[in-house]
Amino acid sequence: MAKELTSRKENYSQWYNDLVIKADLAENSAVRGCMVIKPYGYSIWEKMQAQLDKMFKETGHSNAYFPLFIPKSFFSKEASHVEGFAKECAVVTHYRLKNDENTHEIVVDENAKLEEELIVRPTSETIIWSTYKNWIQSYRDLPILVNQWANVVRWEMRTRLFLRTAEFLWQEGHTAHATRAEAIEETQKMVNVYAEFAEKHMAMPVIKGVKTANERFAGALDTYCIEALMQDGKALQSGTSHFLGQNFAKAFDVKFLDKEGKLDYVWASSWGVSTRLMGALIMAHSDDNGLVLPPKLAPIQVVIVPIYRKAEEMEKISEKALEIKKKLEAKNITVKFDDRDTHKPGFKFAEWELKGVPVRLAIGPRDIENNTIEVARRDTLEKKIYPQENIENITAELLEAIQENIYLKAFKFREENTYETDNWDEFVDIIENKGGFVSAHWDGTSETEDKIKELTKATIRCIPFDAKEEEGKCILTGKPSSKRVIFARAY
Amino acid sequence: MAKELTSRKENYSQWYNDLVIKADLAENSAVRGCMVIKPYGYSIWEKMQAQLDKMFKETGHSNAYFPLFIPKSFFSKEASHVEGFAKECAVVTHYRLKNDENTHEIVVDENAKLEEELIVRPTSETIIWSTYKNWIQSYRDLPILVNQWANVVRWEMRTRLFLRTAEFLWQEGHTAHATRAEAIEETQKMVNVYAEFAEKHMAMPVIKGVKTANERFAGALDTYCIEALMQDGKALQSGTSHFLGQNFAKAFDVKFLDKEGKLDYVWASSWGVSTRLMGALIMAHSDDNGLVLPPKLAPIQVVIVPIYRKAEEMEKISEKALEIKKKLEAKNITVKFDDRDTHKPGFKFAEWELKGVPVRLAIGPRDIENNTIEVARRDTLEKKIYPQENIENITAELLEAIQENIYLKAFKFREENTYETDNWDEFVDIIENKGGFVSAHWDGTSETEDKIKELTKATIRCIPFDAKEEEGKCILTGKPSSKRVIFARAY
Repeated sequence: MAKELTSRKENYSQWYNDLVIKADLAENSAVRGCMVIKPYGYSIWEKMQAQLDKMFKETGHSNAYFPLFIPKSFFSKEASHVEGFAKECAVVTHYRLKNDENTHEIVVDENAKLEEELIVRPTSETIIWSTYKNWIQSYRDLPILVNQWANVVRWEMRTRLFLRTAEFLWQEGHTAHATRAEAIEETQKMVNVYAEFAEKHMAMPVIKGVKTANERFAGALDTYCIEALMQDGKALQSGTSHFLGQNFAKAFDVKFLDKEGKLDYVWASSWGVSTRLMGALIMAHSDDNGLVLPPKLAPIQVVIVPIYRKAEEMEKISEKALEIKKKLEAKNITVKFDDRDTHKPGFKFAEWELKGVPVRLAIGPRDIENNTIEVARRDTLEKKIYPQENIENITAELLEAIQENIYLKAFKFREENTYETDNWDEFVDIIENKGGFVSAHWDGTSETEDKIKELTKATIRCIPFDAKEEEGKCILTGKPSSKRVIFARAY
Repeated sequence: MAKELTSRKENYSQWYNDLVIKADLAENSAVRGCMVIKPYGYSIWEKMQAQLDKMFKETGHSNAYFPLFIPKSFFSKEASHVEGFAKECAVVTHYRLKNDENTHEIVVDENAKLEEELIVRPTSETIIWSTYKNWIQSYRDLPILVNQWANVVRWEMRTRLFLRTAEFLWQEGHTAHATRAEAIEETQKMVNVYAEFAEKHMAMPVIKGVKTANERFAGALDTYCIEALMQDGKALQSGTSHFLGQNFAKAFDVKFLDKEGKLDYVWASSWGVSTRLMGALIMAHSDDNGLVLPPKLAPIQVVIVPIYRKAEEMEKISEKALEIKKKLEAKNITVKFDDRDTHKPGFKFAEWELKGVPVRLAIGPRDIENNTIEVARRDTLEKKIYPQENIENITAELLEAIQENIYLKAFKFREENTYETDNWDEFVDIIENKGGFVSAHWDGTSETEDKIKELTKATIRCIPFDAKEEEGKCILTGKPSSKRVIFARAY
């Protein structure tokens, strides 16, 4: 199976598409731009969801659910928001179908036209703030710390599985606060939660920073983000957290009585990650043999493959395999014993490699004789023979080692592909020929940012939180700059 | 707070509406027919989801995700399905908005009209079977055991929170099998899973049975269901599992090579429960003081309320309360210590009663002296003083006792409100004046069923699986019947 995978070197983009399909993660549907997330792909997303949900709850948030549809007029209420969002949307105009009397086909019933069109949510700030208006009277009702797991629709013209689809799954946190400081603290807290999730669970190093005005969320005063580097040298924005100021509170007239009895508008944040993270996960770690999954997000952490010719052999191997499976499960390790008699071991090896199972155990007749077991790790493809005794501890330690190694490998890759330059020609050369993150000075204007994008297709991914104060000159204009920012071409 | 709740006797329907709002479960949104599920309500739904998801996985199912939109033409492919479903739907006709040059308002861009309208899924059989066509070639690809957690939209004209809303949340299982027998077995297995969930977790007794042709799912050969009785004597269909035969396989041309190398259409089942279960849960158990939640689904199982006047008292009580909280949590009990200094104990008592917390512990200065604690159970409203020692075990046992008692109470109610009659006048009298389930003979025809519905507003809820063979005469027509069926007015 894996043979058919295009190599990364040959065609990175094709490699990604092949991998998503062949590893049974997702596929295009009959509806333009919408994907089907297949069971194996969805089980990885479920692992991500479970961990993120835990982290949201640990930081005091609750889940809730708001309508899929948003009245068209809501979008007009926040001026910059409508500029950024209200254009490419799915618009519901009718609420009934009928049988055409002549053709007997199903047609839209023109008598069932909505008075006001409904938009399928591209994001939920407007419908949620129209709801919060009724929830908030005084400072006692604050903060509101709510998250929603939902599907959203943005009518993208050029779509790619997980990376950019018309419908995608995500979570969107929407919080309301009594003070500006508290809302900013929340915005920062959540970008930190995302970074921790990316690094500790996805094993994907990220740069935390602030977006420039150009790249800011429509309606936000500030957008914080985490940016990851993919193996082709392109950046992938993996999560954003927005400080919305009082913009949506003003748009929906949400005021509260503070402790002094003074009326003020409520302060807000919103933050989200989506199934796009699946794309990031795939592209950050996988290789020409298929997926490489960090153990913490692998739906199957260990696969046991029996090697046998005769039924009697299989009987003994099976007994041993189930014994080992039980021991591993007692250590909270997810194990699959692949006892299919329809496929040969070689086929199974390739399949589980393609699907990114972190550890493969193989047991054959000789292992039964010698009380041994073959242990293969997916990240390095190394194989080693171990005694069966204590295999559960060896495997548990190996899973931890793999989690760490995958992170370090990605970290090393990023280090090797992050450049610092003060020279425009070098800047262009890196962007065009090497890829990666480029740390350079910028004069702080949108015009310069636009110009650089036009010339190189690179955008400012973020102004890193930890960028040190440093006198310098803008890479394009030579105007003064006090900090380096991160440029890259991006997904 | 609870004072404002209408009593069940006074106006059952108003009591329900009041309760949903006042217990912070859900509310109507700005979008007609769509609800907002508030954090407290959603946390109950999350508990339901988690348990159901566990049961689905234990029975071999995986989750996946299919598109929100369905091309209009898909609905025409299964003739009876389109009759049942394709009418009252949200129809997407355009994919872009624009600023009107004159009015500067946001308007639908008429240049962005879809070639084929998209329907927001009212259920996903069609889009899923169009996908399965590509997944299935041979018997080796079967069975497919997939479930989806999703939102769906049915344009209901008269909506009620949880019970009937335009958008609702649900799960829909869609399975594909090589044989008729296997598909029927799956259909039965899942109605049994639903029944077990309803009885063991929701503490709600249900009757399992088969729907008549009238009440069958559009496109199914058979619909199995669980039916529960609400406190006002009306039935509530709480879950359905459909044997779809080869109908959808034929509509979407899904064939497979069987073991003998013969081509045949694939057999199917689908099954679902929705946020309607929230309505069932509320109406099955709650009382005039508010919600009564079975401990297994209560987001907060125990609340600890401190009774104090002075700060020093609170200090000691707080210390003790946190100690008890820790002990309870060690037994996997979810505990809230309500240490708000903004509300009096009486207010807190009423609030947690309204919200259905199964056990309330109260600690005052005298309890600190005597090493005692007041334990109140929500289901019976009984209060009792216990020594603090061993309170974690007492509470754990009490939670089990409450779970059982709630079930038994509902079971007794159903027993007392289930009637058997062979007399038409008595039948009408029960339906009109008493309510409840009526077990009666029926001649097996849709005409009679329709006539009875017209005369009494009662429908056949199901033909119970355990109905015994018994010669009888139809309650309306006097024609021969071999089994009793269950009639009731229903939600």
